Amino acid sequence: MSKPIEVEVCIIGGGVSGLKAAHTLLNYSESKYSSKDLILLEAQDRLGGRIFTDRTSSKLGLSYDLGASWFHDSLNNVVLEESINDGSFNVMEDGYYDDKDMKVFASDKDGPLDVNDMRLHRVAEDLEKFIELYYFDDLDKKDMPLYKIVGMFMEKHSSRLTTEQKKYCNTMLRYLELWYGITWDKISAKYSIMDHQGRNLFNKKGYDFVINKLSRDIPEDRILLAHPVTSIIRNNKNGDKKVAVESANGPTVYCNYLIVTVPQSILSLSPLHIHGITWTPPLPSNITNALESIHFGALGKVIFEFDSCWWDINEDRFEILADSTDDSLLSESLKLPPKSFSFPVFAVNYAAVHKNSTKGASLCILTQSPLTDYLESHPDQAWSYFKPMLAKLKFSDHEVSDPINTITSNWTNNPYVRGSYSAVESGDDPLDIITQLSGEHDCGLTDKNIRFAGEHTILDGSGCVHGAYMSGQREAIWILKDSGAISTAE
Amino acid sequence: MSKPIEVEVCIIGGGVSGLKAAHTLLNYSESKYSSKDLILLEAQDRLGGRIFTDRTSSKLGLSYDLGASWFHDSLNNVVLEESINDGSFNVMEDGYYDDKDMKVFASDKDGPLDVNDMRLHRVAEDLEKFIELYYFDDLDKKDMPLYKIVGMFMEKHSSRLTTEQKKYCNTMLRYLELWYGITWDKISAKYSIMDHQGRNLFNKKGYDFVINKLSRDIPEDRILLAHPVTSIIRNNKNGDKKVAVESANGPTVYCNYLIVTVPQSILSLSPLHIHGITWTPPLPSNITNALESIHFGALGKVIFEFDSCWWDINEDRFEILADSTDDSLLSESLKLPPKSFSFPVFAVNYAAVHKNSTKGASLCILTQSPLTDYLESHPDQAWSYFKPMLAKLKFSDHEVSDPINTITSNWTNNPYVRGSYSAVESGDDPLDIITQLSGEHDCGLTDKNIRFAGEHTILDGSGCVHGAYMSGQREAIWILKDSGAISTAE
Repeated sequence: MSKPIEVEVCIIGGGVSGLKAAHTLLNYSESKYSSKDLILLEAQDRLGGRIFTDRTSSKLGLSYDLGASWFHDSLNNVVLEESINDGSFNVMEDGYYDDKDMKVFASDKDGPLDVNDMRLHRVAEDLEKFIELYYFDDLDKKDMPLYKIVGMFMEKHSSRLTTEQKKYCNTMLRYLELWYGITWDKISAKYSIMDHQGRNLFNKKGYDFVINKLSRDIPEDRILLAHPVTSIIRNNKNGDKKVAVESANGPTVYCNYLIVTVPQSILSLSPLHIHGITWTPPLPSNITNALESIHFGALGKVIFEFDSCWWDINEDRFEILADSTDDSLLSESLKLPPKSFSFPVFAVNYAAVHKNSTKGASLCILTQSPLTDYLESHPDQAWSYFKPMLAKLKFSDHEVSDPINTITSNWTNNPYVRGSYSAVESGDDPLDIITQLSGEHDCGLTDKNIRFAGEHTILDGSGCVHGAYMSGQREAIWILKDSGAISTAE
Repeated sequence: MSKPIEVEVCIIGGGVSGLKAAHTLLNYSESKYSSKDLILLEAQDRLGGRIFTDRTSSKLGLSYDLGASWFHDSLNNVVLEESINDGSFNVMEDGYYDDKDMKVFASDKDGPLDVNDMRLHRVAEDLEKFIELYYFDDLDKKDMPLYKIVGMFMEKHSSRLTTEQKKYCNTMLRYLELWYGITWDKISAKYSIMDHQGRNLFNKKGYDFVINKLSRDIPEDRILLAHPVTSIIRNNKNGDKKVAVESANGPTVYCNYLIVTVPQSILSLSPLHIHGITWTPPLPSNITNALESIHFGALGKVIFEFDSCWWDINEDRFEILADSTDDSLLSESLKLPPKSFSFPVFAVNYAAVHKNSTKGASLCILTQSPLTDYLESHPDQAWSYFKPMLAKLKFSDHEVSDPINTITSNWTNNPYVRGSYSAVESGDDPLDIITQLSGEHDCGLTDKNIRFAGEHTILDGSGCVHGAYMSGQREAIWILKDSGAISTAE
């Protein structure tokens, strides 16, 4: 075992929240901390966490963000705002607003549906408003899965809907599966409708630029890669530091402040699990209960590269509607490849993103659990599964060709990630975990020197890069104030 | 002078709120009132108020609602719901969802703009969200006119907008002028963004069906048409009824309960005005102050009928963007016809509404004050004003032809209406008047037997038929309970 490390602040996790915490501790005006006062432990052999820009797999010379890839809430997104201001991101060159009206396809029709003429989006908007009004009337109303409330709407408003609207709008809200990474038989109806604070801006540059920017000022020896934490001793008696952190490969770290940014999926693991963390004393029941009232989704990506485009290069995004299915089977884990058209498909067209039909002959498809889990474990089956659906996109006199390259994410098999981000299933309480971990209320741990950050610990921007970023900043500032490193007068 | 009338309840105004009040008083279960207990005074020589279905002016055999013509908030609209349930309105036959994506035109281009490709609607949505977030942060923030906050957005987000977006989105939110009936140099930014509870459903049947339904059960002798009220004596000492109401053509009505449904524009008139109402004692300052903190818009309509359609018969609605103008001049009352493209145009295509390109060779254009005032007084100038703008709609190889018939509303010249409905100008307080008049709070008059109803007295559905309807029902039920006519236990 190597020599123990003594620092003021230890940060667990080198994703955007941990790195932003470190960056803030070092750069905040009046901060008394320098790099020797902190250490960052990262379980994987790379920084970035759920930001991962793959710059090597493409045969077309492209880069792909296999994790986060959009700036969401772009009117109120501090990462975007700061990146524009410091010159590291130029919206017009490095971004792409992929929000042209989506082209929608269905199993019973070749070529896109005339969504506008059929007013399918108007009915989908009504559906979302219906859900909002249903729970707005009475917040204590019992939750239900998304598919159930869609059924309620379709029945109640049957006399106002055309035959086509009944056929296609029935499964139209399943696009939300590709936000949450879980299927609509699980999605909480009560918390299904999102309020976006501005357009979604696709990041063409690759999200690793944020990771590089944040980690630039941290000396290499302050970051220990491949050091998965195994144990956190909250009441350390060994020396004068309050907390001891043990990792698989590493020296024991003694610190006065600890920021825990491991994903919710890791926090939820039993200490007996091989990748679980042993807390001494154990996490209190207010936290463990909160962790049991929230789930974790698995948004994944499958990218197909082709010799050339055989779809409409002028459309940003394609949605292929799922057929109505026996929903009870949806969320079972898949042992065989699923039937085509049993899950909705959402695909981003890189030819449009890059305004280049040769270089961008590539489609990026988002997947939800349990499909993500299946395809990440069977990437070789991805094309045979998607081909019958993607064939609907065939444009003009082109012929559907097989891909020259398939790239899939692998989050579900990554023991330190285990999926994508927080997901609210029917009956869940999305706020409890945030209340417990955000440190903004008198909840969580009684030992206030142990802090939590990450997308699961914050309401604004939860599940997003900017949420994780702000949570890291929040905890760094708390520590700076608590330790007297900066004035609390402001 | 004719013989005085003594009744339990007098209702002033035979629009939808007054008629719904009368209908409720007579038909509510357990109500002890019969028609002899009430009288309704209407200033005009017809019922309906700001509902007016013109069934005689068309040369195409159509009917036109010159006042209200949509069911707004169709997910939560009690008038629509009840009309579907009682069989008086069939959505598929009597209604038309005119909410296909709007075709948008501009002065510098023939034919429609490619709104989707230019993402103009996405930027407009961002603009609305920007306004919402701006005031959400701090509700006490100073109000400003809509055009100012649009300018703020365009400046702040300049680096994210294309040249085309800068050109066209600058005036795109002026479509709101055709909701509020006032121009954007007046529209309150703080209260500009609406939350619709469902799609807008165009009423093809004619809104008079609601008026007819409500008035059917009221005997003719209980309705006095052409009886504009001149005086309300709140503390009547003449006999045992509490209130005396005098109208131009007499008789004096003595009653124990009074429901005042005259438009806000009439309530706001000085008692010295020829159409003002003298209150004895005068209205208290809490009400007169509230009336001064709200305005009244003038949404109008100009309908052109043609021999045949020369525009795209498959589009529901056309929007013609205004050019950027010197906004300081906008809200001045117009002495000369305005320049083309100085106001945005919103037109409904009756060929699409009626799915009949011959019978429906008609365009209905909404207008805002001060244009409404001008055109309602100079209907002969309507075509020469609109022609250069409407010519943009020329479709395929058709030629623009002159109309065979022009029909305009005349609300601004109607002394008993004087415009359209409540409008919130910058700096106004839209809630005060509702608080004072709705009777739901301990405000308004101390003599609680005098009640107010109408679109200006209710928050949900304010400015709409269903709002007026619910306000009439609200007051009738209050009186039924207060008079012991029905149990208050429920």
